[in-house]
Amino acid sequence: METMKIKPALPKGMRDFLPADVRKRHYIIQTIKESFELFGFQAIETPVMENLNTLAGKYGDEGDKLLFKVLNSGDYLKKVTFNELGDADSRKLTSKIADKGLRYDLTVPLARYVVQHQNEISFPFKRYHIAPVWRADRPQKGRYREFFQCDADIIGSKSLYNEVELIQIYSSVFEKLELAVTIKYNNRKILMGLMQALGLSGREQDGIVLLDKLDKIGLDRVLEEFKTLGLSQDQLTLFKTVVSENDIHALPHSELIQQGIEELEFVKKFNIPSSKFDVTLARGLDYYTGCIFEVVSNEYEIGSVGGGGRYDNLTEMFGKSDLTGVGISFGLDRIYDVLEGLARFPETLNASSSVMFAHYDDANQSYAFEALGKLRAAGIPAELYPDNAKFQKQIKYANDKGISYVAIVGDNEMKNETFMLKNMETGEQEEMSIQALINYLNSIK
Amino acid sequence: METMKIKPALPKGMRDFLPADVRKRHYIIQTIKESFELFGFQAIETPVMENLNTLAGKYGDEGDKLLFKVLNSGDYLKKVTFNELGDADSRKLTSKIADKGLRYDLTVPLARYVVQHQNEISFPFKRYHIAPVWRADRPQKGRYREFFQCDADIIGSKSLYNEVELIQIYSSVFEKLELAVTIKYNNRKILMGLMQALGLSGREQDGIVLLDKLDKIGLDRVLEEFKTLGLSQDQLTLFKTVVSENDIHALPHSELIQQGIEELEFVKKFNIPSSKFDVTLARGLDYYTGCIFEVVSNEYEIGSVGGGGRYDNLTEMFGKSDLTGVGISFGLDRIYDVLEGLARFPETLNASSSVMFAHYDDANQSYAFEALGKLRAAGIPAELYPDNAKFQKQIKYANDKGISYVAIVGDNEMKNETFMLKNMETGEQEEMSIQALINYLNSIK
Repeated sequence: METMKIKPALPKGMRDFLPADVRKRHYIIQTIKESFELFGFQAIETPVMENLNTLAGKYGDEGDKLLFKVLNSGDYLKKVTFNELGDADSRKLTSKIADKGLRYDLTVPLARYVVQHQNEISFPFKRYHIAPVWRADRPQKGRYREFFQCDADIIGSKSLYNEVELIQIYSSVFEKLELAVTIKYNNRKILMGLMQALGLSGREQDGIVLLDKLDKIGLDRVLEEFKTLGLSQDQLTLFKTVVSENDIHALPHSELIQQGIEELEFVKKFNIPSSKFDVTLARGLDYYTGCIFEVVSNEYEIGSVGGGGRYDNLTEMFGKSDLTGVGISFGLDRIYDVLEGLARFPETLNASSSVMFAHYDDANQSYAFEALGKLRAAGIPAELYPDNAKFQKQIKYANDKGISYVAIVGDNEMKNETFMLKNMETGEQEEMSIQALINYLNSIK
Repeated sequence: METMKIKPALPKGMRDFLPADVRKRHYIIQTIKESFELFGFQAIETPVMENLNTLAGKYGDEGDKLLFKVLNSGDYLKKVTFNELGDADSRKLTSKIADKGLRYDLTVPLARYVVQHQNEISFPFKRYHIAPVWRADRPQKGRYREFFQCDADIIGSKSLYNEVELIQIYSSVFEKLELAVTIKYNNRKILMGLMQALGLSGREQDGIVLLDKLDKIGLDRVLEEFKTLGLSQDQLTLFKTVVSENDIHALPHSELIQQGIEELEFVKKFNIPSSKFDVTLARGLDYYTGCIFEVVSNEYEIGSVGGGGRYDNLTEMFGKSDLTGVGISFGLDRIYDVLEGLARFPETLNASSSVMFAHYDDANQSYAFEALGKLRAAGIPAELYPDNAKFQKQIKYANDKGISYVAIVGDNEMKNETFMLKNMETGEQEEMSIQALINYLNSIK
């Protein structure tokens, strides 16, 4: 081992998590995971690293810059010519010295996975994946270079029951987390039809990106920008009516709009709690083709806490076309911030141990250790303060770790074959036998 | 999105996991995790990337070569001089263009974490960490470039109860996994004392590395190699006696050996199931200072499935000394291979859904969808075949996914307000009401 001392630090935008943070994060992940499984989704895993040719070009030029690239192993300059080096052009050099990168999301790896394993999986393929992704973004409050995505997708089914179930998953997860949210949904076919009705045929995506800005810049400025795209007064009025009344009946009934409305009505009729059609929901990304979703908190000011939609060409880039998909994603970090901001995490998320044994000397400790084994055999997470330390230090340790009960062993308890159980919150103490201790701790689990 | 087609593939030494694999891996991880928590350990998380100066020099020259290094973001050549580039020396260039790397194990990150967060955590710090690590090793059967480590450590406690509890964790995990193992333990103080008795003072580690080869090359060749280190005939005889009789009483009682024996006796007296003192257990790594552990399967030929020990200077490299630690690790991939090789995975690890609804037309499907909601509300994982597909295709899908029951809906069932429940293993069918269906599926969970 090196003897040079290094100041402990993390790369920027990366985080450690303390035990209490991990428990809160696992509470959210576990809630999401249970709902995914209740709805028949199965977990898959993919490596953290993908070949760069799998990732490159999938997220636009901006996304390519944000990919973390991994240096080739060994003498990575061996095949680089002197001229190539001399250019000192890092963009060109990268492709020579790095052929792997860290995944940027879980969607492109899913597309690769589905094509690569198409003969091993059953379609419709209902998979979930909860895992970290990496982006070399400029770190800022609430934005990290390593963060978790929690995705569920169905690949290879056109049925609208999938859309309904995905909204139901959102509804059930946020109900379990006791968070009031609105699950907005819309349909890209309607938006495409709307943009065509506004005279933007061939430029529909420009109009959708503009609509997506509505929340940020307001209706007046969106209308102004639409004007610069060449909309007539009638078209501007149509847009204003549709948007401000959240009503699509004013739209001319093109085939596309008709199809969008049918899809929408199918979803609408299930009246899923907390869900709401919102014609202004746009989702910036250009690959959505049908239903789109976004979830916002009703109680806490923050961006969306979830989003998704249907896409038709996910696997085309890997040589398999005609495979439609629809999926949702949960924003773990934002959900964490909402629960923390509203102090809505359950109080029961305390230490892993239900009880810690404290003691005054070696004999007390040995007596406690025997009891410890009985508690664990009964399935009760428990620990022993391992060292001979001052009694108050042991109590402080249990308190710092958030352990709710301390079982105290002194000579008296040994003589009586008992334990003095101290409630760390109320300070109350009660002397009891090992069996009473097991019964009590089991009863409050 | 790029239109160029890419053949889906993974970087070498990396793996995807299919849903059935993930369930088996989670079964092992969950078993380990439950034991860690039963013993009062708490989970922490650290980033996948660490600064290279945190990792470099910690694993020897060979380890440094195996680190995956991450290219700096942006124009990483900006600060590299023309001469530095012109040298075309990849080892020198690396330090200029990459300041982050992927973690190689969970131990160095733990040391960094403990020092960095020393004012936020309570000592003794009992943490567990189950997460992937990366090594640019040459991939071969059973050796991957991305693999999981499952570690539990106690930092800041000299108590030997920690050693006892760690062996108990091994014992409980392998008992739950229904695997017969031997948990070997030894003590570095005894080994150091043994090497000193063999005249290897100052060269103890050479002797320990040699002892570590015993399993591979046999006693005769080890004795030969000891001879080349300059051992006398008496010393060779002493070594032979100690090793072949697994008896340390022949050793001269130096203070070091005395201390080692006391530590050993403390552990021994608890008679932990499956544990056994083994004086030939060496563990190659030079940082162990007290008790060492290793677990081997009694039923399946494979390397060790777990190992660990006490180390005294873990955090010194980050500027904090006098912090002793002791820990164990489980080898997830090898445990997987043993369970798979012995066909010892539980049969209940089937699909996430308990039941799938199959149907003949839209009306049947709509009727099934209503029942689906009731099952899920009762906590029963369930799914609906989402599309209108041929009945046999739906049944095949359930079968491929390992779903044990299919609830069939035809016009008859709709008329009777029932479902035809088909047992996919026996082929038996029984018509029942929704309530009977819920009761039955709940009863077999």
